[in-house]
Amino acid sequence: MPENKLTQIQAARRGDITSEVEAVARAEQLEAEWLAGEIAAGRVVITRNNQRLDIAPLAIGNRLPVRVNANIGTSRDACDYDNELRKARAAQEAGTDTIMDLSTGGDLDHMRRLIMSEVKLPLGTVPIYEAVARAVEEKRSFCELDAEEIFAVIARQLEQGVDFLTVHCGVSLRTLERLECEGRVMDVVSRGGSMTIAWMRHNGRENPLLEQFDRLLELAAARDAVLSLGDGFRPGATCDATDRAQIEELLILGELQQRALERGVQVMIEGPGHVPLDQVEANVLLEKRLCHGAPFYVLGPLVTDRAPGYDHITGAIGGAMAAWAGADFLCYVTPAEHLRLPDEQDVRQGVVASRIAAAAAELANQRPQALAAELAMSRSRKRLDWEGMFRHAIDPQTARHSREQIPPSDDDTCSMCGELCAIKLLDK
Amino acid sequence: MPENKLTQIQAARRGDITSEVEAVARAEQLEAEWLAGEIAAGRVVITRNNQRLDIAPLAIGNRLPVRVNANIGTSRDACDYDNELRKARAAQEAGTDTIMDLSTGGDLDHMRRLIMSEVKLPLGTVPIYEAVARAVEEKRSFCELDAEEIFAVIARQLEQGVDFLTVHCGVSLRTLERLECEGRVMDVVSRGGSMTIAWMRHNGRENPLLEQFDRLLELAAARDAVLSLGDGFRPGATCDATDRAQIEELLILGELQQRALERGVQVMIEGPGHVPLDQVEANVLLEKRLCHGAPFYVLGPLVTDRAPGYDHITGAIGGAMAAWAGADFLCYVTPAEHLRLPDEQDVRQGVVASRIAAAAAELANQRPQALAAELAMSRSRKRLDWEGMFRHAIDPQTARHSREQIPPSDDDTCSMCGELCAIKLLDK
Repeated sequence: MPENKLTQIQAARRGDITSEVEAVARAEQLEAEWLAGEIAAGRVVITRNNQRLDIAPLAIGNRLPVRVNANIGTSRDACDYDNELRKARAAQEAGTDTIMDLSTGGDLDHMRRLIMSEVKLPLGTVPIYEAVARAVEEKRSFCELDAEEIFAVIARQLEQGVDFLTVHCGVSLRTLERLECEGRVMDVVSRGGSMTIAWMRHNGRENPLLEQFDRLLELAAARDAVLSLGDGFRPGATCDATDRAQIEELLILGELQQRALERGVQVMIEGPGHVPLDQVEANVLLEKRLCHGAPFYVLGPLVTDRAPGYDHITGAIGGAMAAWAGADFLCYVTPAEHLRLPDEQDVRQGVVASRIAAAAAELANQRPQALAAELAMSRSRKRLDWEGMFRHAIDPQTARHSREQIPPSDDDTCSMCGELCAIKLLDK
Repeated sequence: MPENKLTQIQAARRGDITSEVEAVARAEQLEAEWLAGEIAAGRVVITRNNQRLDIAPLAIGNRLPVRVNANIGTSRDACDYDNELRKARAAQEAGTDTIMDLSTGGDLDHMRRLIMSEVKLPLGTVPIYEAVARAVEEKRSFCELDAEEIFAVIARQLEQGVDFLTVHCGVSLRTLERLECEGRVMDVVSRGGSMTIAWMRHNGRENPLLEQFDRLLELAAARDAVLSLGDGFRPGATCDATDRAQIEELLILGELQQRALERGVQVMIEGPGHVPLDQVEANVLLEKRLCHGAPFYVLGPLVTDRAPGYDHITGAIGGAMAAWAGADFLCYVTPAEHLRLPDEQDVRQGVVASRIAAAAAELANQRPQALAAELAMSRSRKRLDWEGMFRHAIDPQTARHSREQIPPSDDDTCSMCGELCAIKLLDK
């Protein structure tokens, strides 16, 4: 260990209760020993770079609340640092648990530093984006990148304090063969996945992040960063869901998770994507079995391809179902998905939609905190206590503003029913 | 039969294929004989008043597409006929299958006539609202209404051409006793239910719509209107879902459906409401068993109480789950639910959210038309054919507008990924 520090997994194995485990256990009303055991087994991760002490440690996984991530980041078509920072702040205000900076345009290093200094939440990145963006800046094809350059970007990001990294280690020549053999409507829609495949095809070589996985583990262990094993072969169309390429990749990710665990490196597994509602539960079960209970981080899933402009809703449907079935971490999808870079309003909508999915799932799983929160809201409703309703709402500001738009003549009720309010009728 | 006409059920029992059955069978690619059999068995209804020949017959139920309803209507706090008409038109543009006019303020007769002449979709109402609104206009308590007045309103509305009526016939003294004995956080939140209960308590008498159910059947049969048996005891909080009062009422509705069927009257069953995600499937199964497969018309269901301002999303999650489990007809919920009367924009959002839920459910149920629609969208995406994507979108206008807000520099892609578009990367 270059830093001569134990990772959370290594500490837990020795029977130590770290300050991070203690803090999470207290905040979540869990037993610290139990939590440490879950971390040692790879079923819970704590997403904090060991050099980033100005953020609270956040645990993701088994029996923890369903967490929400918001992606922000510049693109080559829309590169405005302040705007992305505003989006990150908006995501935080709306209640996201983590931020991923997926910037691909401009000075990525600067963007990341800005977010880390202003938004005190765990930060994730996809290092291959930076490697590719640098190559494009230098007018080289990213296929000419060598493995050293990719690892240099990863090392630098970890040094900077990034808390979790998406690495597409499951993209392999074998998975690619399975993909090509079966065929797909949408092929590959993961940006990191498609970059890796393009690189592999051009160079006729295996994915360096898979080939040199141990090197990646060493870098991650030094900062106790979480590796989020990306699903480069995630389906990009509902008709491609749960196919051979996707499952082959999941098999590989499960094996890599085991290797990471042995080296004391925390891992999450990323999941789809576009999945019909009837396949969501099976996808979660497969991940939990094949990856030995590792935290499952899903993108949506989107339960229909037919609603561009409303993918926060298709994602909330799939996210609720997935989290109910055991997914631990929901990556938001905004109304702008498939259409353009999201703006600040899209970010808010996306975070709230994912939080609604999380709330629905936690209620379905009868999580005591969720049951209590529902009851508090329902009791406020019964009392026609509008301030109470706003206080217990997932987005108080929007609820308050909506009610004020068409105000009722009677302060107790709302302009839908007025004096014919069912609650008032029966109270009289 | 005053009109000397057979109802759809009666015709089907005689082995007649009516022009309505023929039209629906053709439109939905079903066998007319099979469809007639489903109507005779009460598993499919055709929602068209036999005097309203200027609208297309719409079938709802077993193996038919999941249908969507939009509620509009004045309230005593916001009574603007033109505005409600605009909302009805917006709902139609957004793709609703039916409209319910739930007006409680102003000249209800005028409002209804306006909608029926301008919006050529099946129209539903809740006649008790008009009876109560009239009493309130005359400065009487609605508890002083007598059964004759209620039946007079129903007769007049049917004469006017209303296609389906919500009647809270399951609200009975016995159900009320069960409710009071068990207790609830939110008691009764159905307006029609609470009006009926207030009337029953005040008069110390049984619900006239239950007591004189045969009279109701006679009126409905004359116009072949569909009775939508309302759930006055639907839960108004997730913690009240699937309780004794709700299930007692459902038992009664099932028995009434059987009586209606014997008299040739078409029936739908209304369902909840506020239901945790893990109880949605059971609620659908219960309805299908206890009501012998009668079409199930659900309100949402809302899978959490905690998202005022976003109940179109909580409703889309519950609606997708319910329709996947077999619910036939989704009543939309708008973002304004629990806060105020919805406006035109809310109406659009509500219809689209319900249509997304329907699309997700039809895909999960592998309905061939849904599979084909998904495929058409995904193929357009793969080709980066933006016009195709808009054409196959549930809401083309919103998708197009969104993309144009932050236009890409390269016409093929969008401003999210630009030249790093995964599809382009792999095509190169």
